[in-house]
Amino acid sequence: MKNIRLVVLDVDGTMTDGGVYIDNERVETKKFSIKDGCGIVLAHTQGIAFMILTGRESQCVAQRAKELHIEYVFQQVKHKASFLREFMEKEGLSREELAYIGDDLNDLYAMREAGVRACPSDAAPEIKAQCEYVLQAKGGEGAVREFIEILLKARGQWEEAIEKAFG
Amino acid sequence: MKNIRLVVLDVDGTMTDGGVYIDNERVETKKFSIKDGCGIVLAHTQGIAFMILTGRESQCVAQRAKELHIEYVFQQVKHKASFLREFMEKEGLSREELAYIGDDLNDLYAMREAGVRACPSDAAPEIKAQCEYVLQAKGGEGAVREFIEILLKARGQWEEAIEKAFG
Amino acid sequence: MKNIRLVVLDVDGTMTDGGVYIDNERVETKKFSIKDGCGIVLAHTQGIAFMILTGRESQCVAQRAKELHIEYVFQQVKHKASFLREFMEKEGLSREELAYIGDDLNDLYAMREAGVRACPSDAAPEIKAQCEYVLQAKGGEGAVREFIEILLKARGQWEEAIEKAFG
Amino acid sequence: MKNIRLVVLDVDGTMTDGGVYIDNERVETKKFSIKDGCGIVLAHTQGIAFMILTGRESQCVAQRAKELHIEYVFQQVKHKASFLREFMEKEGLSREELAYIGDDLNDLYAMREAGVRACPSDAAPEIKAQCEYVLQAKGGEGAVREFIEILLKARGQWEEAIEKAFG
Repeated sequence: MKNIRLVVLDVDGTMTDGGVYIDNERVETKKFSIKDGCGIVLAHTQGIAFMILTGRESQCVAQRAKELHIEYVFQQVKHKASFLREFMEKEGLSREELAYIGDDLNDLYAMREAGVRACPSDAAPEIKAQCEYVLQAKGGEGAVREFIEILLKARGQWEEAIEKAFG
Repeated sequence: MKNIRLVVLDVDGTMTDGGVYIDNERVETKKFSIKDGCGIVLAHTQGIAFMILTGRESQCVAQRAKELHIEYVFQQVKHKASFLREFMEKEGLSREELAYIGDDLNDLYAMREAGVRACPSDAAPEIKAQCEYVLQAKGGEGAVREFIEILLKARGQWEEAIEKAFG
Repeated sequence: MKNIRLVVLDVDGTMTDGGVYIDNERVETKKFSIKDGCGIVLAHTQGIAFMILTGRESQCVAQRAKELHIEYVFQQVKHKASFLREFMEKEGLSREELAYIGDDLNDLYAMREAGVRACPSDAAPEIKAQCEYVLQAKGGEGAVREFIEILLKARGQWEEAIEKAFG
Repeated sequence: MKNIRLVVLDVDGTMTDGGVYIDNERVETKKFSIKDGCGIVLAHTQGIAFMILTGRESQCVAQRAKELHIEYVFQQVKHKASFLREFMEKEGLSREELAYIGDDLNDLYAMREAGVRACPSDAAPEIKAQCEYVLQAKGGEGAVREFIEILLKARGQWEEAIEKAFG
């Protein structure tokens, strides 16, 4: 955990509750968590960066990413694993510098590129089986925040982050 | 399960959480599940087709069906049982080739046309009583995905489907 | 239960989950339950009528009432108890002909006008204390449907209602 | 509790379920609780005032505040603690006259300005640790109402409030 510089985030089922809300004018809504947002604010005070990596595409993800000052946002990525490998090579990032939070089978292979893996409590069994951290929170109910808290505490940065962000 | 070629899906309470979200401009929203979407992607790799069969009508169902490449979409079907019988006859489909996932009394008679029946954990008691598979997930929280996993595993196609879809 | 001709329904917290969803364009959304809708269809086959009685006003209630062919819709009723008394007098309805489903203190006095009272499992303690039927479902998750099932079964009309509505 | 004149309310995670619903047209929705609204009506009959104090800014908060006749609405407040201290000084309010309901770390310091602190059951551990009242309800599911009930009962005003508001 000491070397983590970038946390890769899946969207649906990880940052959201997995709900695909669609209305009769074909507008989609996603439900994010304010707790995750608070966690990302805390992590930012310690220089940890975030990447959103999703196979789908929507304006609401762009909007939420903007609000949270997320450093990298990649949507409509069909092959997350190869995309991530290329990104790491280009940026000179090693496995040990990456954490990945995902919940379902479309993250199965891509997660293996990261040194640390975490998933919400309602992730698919195949994902849970390969994660170092199976979180207690469900997707969209603070799973990302829970991982950040574990990460910052492991580094002894939790108290300092709270003080910097909200003190 | 070996002969299933088509899975018939009820919408409200099966593909959704049973919520009827209506706003003050009279626009309705439904909450679908990303997990179900992942399951349908997996089933498609094995040549299994899907039909949406609902007594109501809404644009959001059309939109979700399109995203998921669902083969048959029939809305505003008042008599699901007779509609399904006619469809099966026209397409030359036998009972053994059909699975049906539904949750409430408007599916009671139509489900009897299918060789295999499944329902979410929060289905009506009368529906549960006639289902071979009472799933652990609630409607809109991955019930469809859970059935697909059971189906593909029964056919020994689960690993191959994951590899084909996401490998 | 034998004499019930009209079921009075509170909206927020009874027909809905008690959520007041408001967006940044100040449009409000309510979450109704498809299960309740199915119950109302069943009750209608047995000549039972419904009244929506709410202290607030919104287009989404009018829309849902229309879909469900609800006979009486009264919104923005500040004094539910006196309003109901006048309605009963005008229509020549006795207490024994009325059931009332409500969940919170603004229904406290009005519910006393009805011969039979029911509430969702998450109703206020004061409401539960005066109800003949404390339902197992929460508001917006099928509480209305649960009461209708109890009512129709008590009258020996459940099987007939299913047959008439969906057979 | 006898001296409380003003209840300060955090929004996300306290008055809402912590969900940040964003649609593809970048419109945000929040889910408030009708039960909280009922509680605020009751408290108003006893001359208790409310303040909304949030670090974010949205029209839906303004709309909900207006519906509930909330006396003070302050959005986009980056430093809640110093803001609250200045407000108290300007208005001549002492700690004993203030209650504060919050759920997360951005309320950590500001809550310490109030004489009485309460939080929803799903608040952050650091918040729970400094609260006199850890409520049983989650944020957005009646936590504010639960606190008001405790407050009015402690003052012997509960029955009178119900009578005044709904009798």
